[in-house]
Amino acid sequence: MREISEIFTHRSVRSYTTQPIPEEILTDILEAGARASNTGNMQLYSMIVTTLPSLKERLAPLHFNQPMVRQAPVLITFCADIHRFGLWCRQRGAEPGYDNFLWFVNALTDAMLAAQNVILEAEAHSLGVCFLGTAVYNAAPIAEVLQLPAGVIPVGAICVGYPADEQPLTPRLPLEAVVHRETYRDYAPQDIDRLWAEREASDETRRLKEENGLPNLARIFTERRYKHGDNLHFARSYFDTLRAQGFFNQ
Amino acid sequence: MREISEIFTHRSVRSYTTQPIPEEILTDILEAGARASNTGNMQLYSMIVTTLPSLKERLAPLHFNQPMVRQAPVLITFCADIHRFGLWCRQRGAEPGYDNFLWFVNALTDAMLAAQNVILEAEAHSLGVCFLGTAVYNAAPIAEVLQLPAGVIPVGAICVGYPADEQPLTPRLPLEAVVHRETYRDYAPQDIDRLWAEREASDETRRLKEENGLPNLARIFTERRYKHGDNLHFARSYFDTLRAQGFFNQ
Repeated sequence: MREISEIFTHRSVRSYTTQPIPEEILTDILEAGARASNTGNMQLYSMIVTTLPSLKERLAPLHFNQPMVRQAPVLITFCADIHRFGLWCRQRGAEPGYDNFLWFVNALTDAMLAAQNVILEAEAHSLGVCFLGTAVYNAAPIAEVLQLPAGVIPVGAICVGYPADEQPLTPRLPLEAVVHRETYRDYAPQDIDRLWAEREASDETRRLKEENGLPNLARIFTERRYKHGDNLHFARSYFDTLRAQGFFNQ
Repeated sequence: MREISEIFTHRSVRSYTTQPIPEEILTDILEAGARASNTGNMQLYSMIVTTLPSLKERLAPLHFNQPMVRQAPVLITFCADIHRFGLWCRQRGAEPGYDNFLWFVNALTDAMLAAQNVILEAEAHSLGVCFLGTAVYNAAPIAEVLQLPAGVIPVGAICVGYPADEQPLTPRLPLEAVVHRETYRDYAPQDIDRLWAEREASDETRRLKEENGLPNLARIFTERRYKHGDNLHFARSYFDTLRAQGFFNQ
């Protein structure tokens, strides 16, 4: 029943060999990105392919020094991009009106549909990929390193390279947790207990609770991994960057 | 060199047969969605599968009466969802801090990576798909029809069904238009001319210019398809909905 094997065997790869990615494979995976659906066929995204060690060295701390940023041969930063389309419009005597929140959402959507194509096509070439949400956390300094003009903002990034080790598949909640039939069916307390039961009973959760000295997995999320104060800080800084890059004009 | 054929043969399908989608195929394509990378494995999205004609009838005008919404056997609305994770946290005595813009962006990203998996796996089962960005344009009334609680907002939708006709592949800009090496290289006027040359010289563009009585394709975008006033209207209404659904708390 399962058709596209890459979808079902996907795991994040965080350790890479030094083997470079052949240019024709890199081109193929980028072309895969460009084939995704996109709003009005306007292609309001850019993919920035960074391989230079000196640039990766500047980007690594902005991705919280996750070692794969330096190690992977290729880092691709996906950007929402209304700049290129706007240049074309003005050059043709048309006044673009895309410097607002609607088109940030459209462009982010298009960039992520493209990103998932890139990820799957890379994996089909035996490459490993790790998605870096951290492109959003430090969007302003990343924009500076990558020399993004107004109208362009990072929305995500991936490391790509040949895997140095094999990772296990990450467990997911049961499908019923994320699927609703016809309309949204709210969760009763016993639903929540049932949906998280397997995750909470796992060896990994037991190990994490011991390591963190906390009584349950939820508190590891809220008190260790993604804390309220940090969330607010990065929410504000990303929104400020969004304004500064010209995606929130009125 | 091309590996995943569905990526390179993808086209939007806007006309469907009456053949229903077998339940096991529907489950498979939804499971494909759940396998995508997501922030912290928190799965901050929901997929709402609507098949009831009475509900599709209410949703169709909110998607500007695009005929495929009524015609397709299945409509899947993708939502950013911090509600389910928040319920779990509170039930475990943990205080979630995800009701802010950072987590809207993270959840939207995760929902779209999942959506692209669903699209490709559906196509691998000979289904046709059309992505509906209109889920963002009328997010508030769609949320009402789908009974979305606070912490859940539509970010996109797809129609899925067996194709009634065959569509041609849509042209894209040359790959160099959307790819930058190392850092962003800004476009000179002659770059813009070159990158759009083929699109502007196409038979389709000639036809569109005649139909619209406008001298170029750019002005068809800015004066017909996506007009400044409409863009601002929908930008504001989506941002208002974002606040109302609790994704912009401080």
